[in-house]
Amino acid sequence: MKPVCLVIGAGAGIGGTVAKRFARGGYHVVLSRRSDKQGLDEMVRDIESEGGSAVGHLINAVEPGAIEALIKETSEAGPIEVVVFNLGAQIGTRPLAATSLKQFELGWRMACFVLFRAAQAAMPTMVQNGKGCFLVTSSTAAMRGNEGQHAHAAAMGGRRMLCQSLNAEFGSKGIHIAHIVVDGPVDAPDTLGKMMGPENFAELRRTAGGRDGLLDPAQIADTYWHVAHQHRSAWSFELDLRPWSELPWWNDKPQPTAKI
Amino acid sequence: MKPVCLVIGAGAGIGGTVAKRFARGGYHVVLSRRSDKQGLDEMVRDIESEGGSAVGHLINAVEPGAIEALIKETSEAGPIEVVVFNLGAQIGTRPLAATSLKQFELGWRMACFVLFRAAQAAMPTMVQNGKGCFLVTSSTAAMRGNEGQHAHAAAMGGRRMLCQSLNAEFGSKGIHIAHIVVDGPVDAPDTLGKMMGPENFAELRRTAGGRDGLLDPAQIADTYWHVAHQHRSAWSFELDLRPWSELPWWNDKPQPTAKI
Amino acid sequence: MKPVCLVIGAGAGIGGTVAKRFARGGYHVVLSRRSDKQGLDEMVRDIESEGGSAVGHLINAVEPGAIEALIKETSEAGPIEVVVFNLGAQIGTRPLAATSLKQFELGWRMACFVLFRAAQAAMPTMVQNGKGCFLVTSSTAAMRGNEGQHAHAAAMGGRRMLCQSLNAEFGSKGIHIAHIVVDGPVDAPDTLGKMMGPENFAELRRTAGGRDGLLDPAQIADTYWHVAHQHRSAWSFELDLRPWSELPWWNDKPQPTAKI
Amino acid sequence: MKPVCLVIGAGAGIGGTVAKRFARGGYHVVLSRRSDKQGLDEMVRDIESEGGSAVGHLINAVEPGAIEALIKETSEAGPIEVVVFNLGAQIGTRPLAATSLKQFELGWRMACFVLFRAAQAAMPTMVQNGKGCFLVTSSTAAMRGNEGQHAHAAAMGGRRMLCQSLNAEFGSKGIHIAHIVVDGPVDAPDTLGKMMGPENFAELRRTAGGRDGLLDPAQIADTYWHVAHQHRSAWSFELDLRPWSELPWWNDKPQPTAKI
Repeated sequence: MKPVCLVIGAGAGIGGTVAKRFARGGYHVVLSRRSDKQGLDEMVRDIESEGGSAVGHLINAVEPGAIEALIKETSEAGPIEVVVFNLGAQIGTRPLAATSLKQFELGWRMACFVLFRAAQAAMPTMVQNGKGCFLVTSSTAAMRGNEGQHAHAAAMGGRRMLCQSLNAEFGSKGIHIAHIVVDGPVDAPDTLGKMMGPENFAELRRTAGGRDGLLDPAQIADTYWHVAHQHRSAWSFELDLRPWSELPWWNDKPQPTAKI
Repeated sequence: MKPVCLVIGAGAGIGGTVAKRFARGGYHVVLSRRSDKQGLDEMVRDIESEGGSAVGHLINAVEPGAIEALIKETSEAGPIEVVVFNLGAQIGTRPLAATSLKQFELGWRMACFVLFRAAQAAMPTMVQNGKGCFLVTSSTAAMRGNEGQHAHAAAMGGRRMLCQSLNAEFGSKGIHIAHIVVDGPVDAPDTLGKMMGPENFAELRRTAGGRDGLLDPAQIADTYWHVAHQHRSAWSFELDLRPWSELPWWNDKPQPTAKI
Repeated sequence: MKPVCLVIGAGAGIGGTVAKRFARGGYHVVLSRRSDKQGLDEMVRDIESEGGSAVGHLINAVEPGAIEALIKETSEAGPIEVVVFNLGAQIGTRPLAATSLKQFELGWRMACFVLFRAAQAAMPTMVQNGKGCFLVTSSTAAMRGNEGQHAHAAAMGGRRMLCQSLNAEFGSKGIHIAHIVVDGPVDAPDTLGKMMGPENFAELRRTAGGRDGLLDPAQIADTYWHVAHQHRSAWSFELDLRPWSELPWWNDKPQPTAKI
Repeated sequence: MKPVCLVIGAGAGIGGTVAKRFARGGYHVVLSRRSDKQGLDEMVRDIESEGGSAVGHLINAVEPGAIEALIKETSEAGPIEVVVFNLGAQIGTRPLAATSLKQFELGWRMACFVLFRAAQAAMPTMVQNGKGCFLVTSSTAAMRGNEGQHAHAAAMGGRRMLCQSLNAEFGSKGIHIAHIVVDGPVDAPDTLGKMMGPENFAELRRTAGGRDGLLDPAQIADTYWHVAHQHRSAWSFELDLRPWSELPWWNDKPQPTAKI
């Protein structure tokens, strides 16, 4: 029986591509996303056409009980060895006055609260089996709050601390928690593409993308695979990923009155 | 007319003591807390008996509209110059399995969402006046997530990033945001005292407290006063506070197989 | 007898201004710098003209034994209560290939090694007295290494860790170590002024300075005074300082492909 | 012709084991260490016996010109694609008063200055070829300065900032800089073994090691291999490594008066 990998947030970017990678690696992959059944089915078919094993679920993870039910159902097939948590809270940059209460709350529910619930649902079995892995797709907003990022940064920052608390409790029970900071633009039509609009995104793909200046989800997936299979004597909790041509978030370009 | 300082979470520890300090400094202080009218009234009377100006409100800040109404009402008296945000999410240490959905959500609502709402309510006037100050009482949990601190760390970590986003947007509009990391036990009967139980707390006061090993809220208040009055050419966004005898959160005692 | 404050690196910017502040506060201030006897004498006279007590020493702190001798000599007058360590390693921005071995080493010697030596020289007496304070003027380079900042960032980063180790050992012996991150341009003719050149600096003073967009050393000095006199139940180890109009080092301006 | 990997500090722990891994992966490995020719020769023979290609050099990297000469000589064989920088400054835990000037300086020279010199020597060719990689073995001391770690933390902290400056300048020139924080005890007879003494180390191997509680250099080497071969659209600058059973450096065990 194949080990099970559950991808929460299997869009066409990181989530779906990590799903494919784990399928190629021999996992039975359970893909969940909120909408676009057609895209989800296509993703499942692509995996199966390569000889892989996958199933897709449309769920609204924010809905009470939804993620718990998905995890329960998935576990019935076999123990979940890897959870790829790929939900974000990015709604674009907007001033405080233009960030509604609903948006702020939704960001937290989606990015932070769903992880808490997913962990509560999945941990008992993982602990019982003495092994498991959570790969959490994070972003720069978990490390610093930029202007206009109130909802997203609050959600990401909270989730990073949650990951640390989860690791502090469950690492020594054999569960590998990894918080992966994606620090740069990802070649992902469903997320970045939607936010930028198709023309801008196509242009970005042509220019930055043409010289590997966009994070390639397939390359990200290779690192996810590596981290998930690190031997337990040498686990990584946190790592960053960015294109070679991108300055890390902590840097800025030299200036005359540089903060130095 | 006195400048106004609004303290959200005016308990007997940091909140109430900072309120007293600002009253002594000539502010009209608006104290809000959730319960214990008697204690609140006593706090107001203490301030008034010293010649200061204060008023108290019992509000459940988590309730929709409550903090917004308080800020609106307070602003009618005069522009709020300083908001001391002193709500936390500390429910003690408990494993993931013993942290209810309700607790996790309440932590976020209280510590993070109320700040978001308070900022939305207060910023327009502060920006109009070209000045204002938010002093946010934070804790070690904003910097790292310890075992058993899922709700608190997630709430604190999220709030820290929110403070950074607020600062990024409003610093250059003349609003001083300060995130103050209280990294140690505070001599506060309402919070630490309740969590430890009266006997343990009394013992702690006797031992650690006897040698200044507990953070004295009056001393904390002096630093809050200083930060709130920093000249705008030299503002602090973040600082830590701990007793001289406490190792900072990033340290541990030397060991044979030290992480070195 | 007045308590003694030793300022290592008493230039016309932060160092000299902090010296003045401590003199006004009743300290006997010992000012040391490497060159410009005239400027040093003038600084001492200014302090004395206000009724304060000061003495100046020209020393090359990097020279073996120099800082040790200064500390020994100063201690003979009375116990050093505060050391203001204000030496930096900023040589401007230059690519790796244009950073000589000598420059890299000098940066370390000046900013990091001198502090180590000063601490070794001063601690025994401070520990014996059960009190003392080191205020270390740091910069953004201690928090992140920017392009072209190899020597400065390495020196500053090393010094920050040294300050943490000093604090871990000596905090509980009553010595207050504070690492103050100056994150922005300082109105300091001897340092920033020299690096920018007089015309650029004058222009910066006119524009940014005209709206409090340059850190005013006198305001910085007030915070140094506050930190040095924090009650030991509530010490700060680290804080940042920047003008209201400056984005912190961790932020950047929103962009279309923002790292979010 | 095989690509070249230069290991600076090829002891029996991480350095030598990473060397073996790269040799197995098809690199010609140049191993350098300071002493123990016998151990070095044995390491080279082990690699060759598996069909790999390696050569060893005994050099004192701290010596002026030594690392430069090694890099020059190595480059004559072929372009250096990967530099594994594995020198540390760990001299064990000792109070400030017991840390000599010589030790403090040597720590900096070995861990920080040698990297600076190695980068200066190797970058021109790497930049010319548009590719290269530096894997820098770091430790917890780069992230926080513990008691008794003055020399080591200062050297490690400085080196971390140097790595950030190197990355800021050279990442966009195609050079991958990776700063790998080893946060836990490593099963390494030459370093940890020596510091603990043979009996304590044997005991540690039996207990912690018996349950994967010691970092296995072979597992570390697999992650080094992965990072060195990340596609340039998705590079990691920093990651941590620790055994599953080790709490990260930022955590401590829950306590009654927890810093929370």
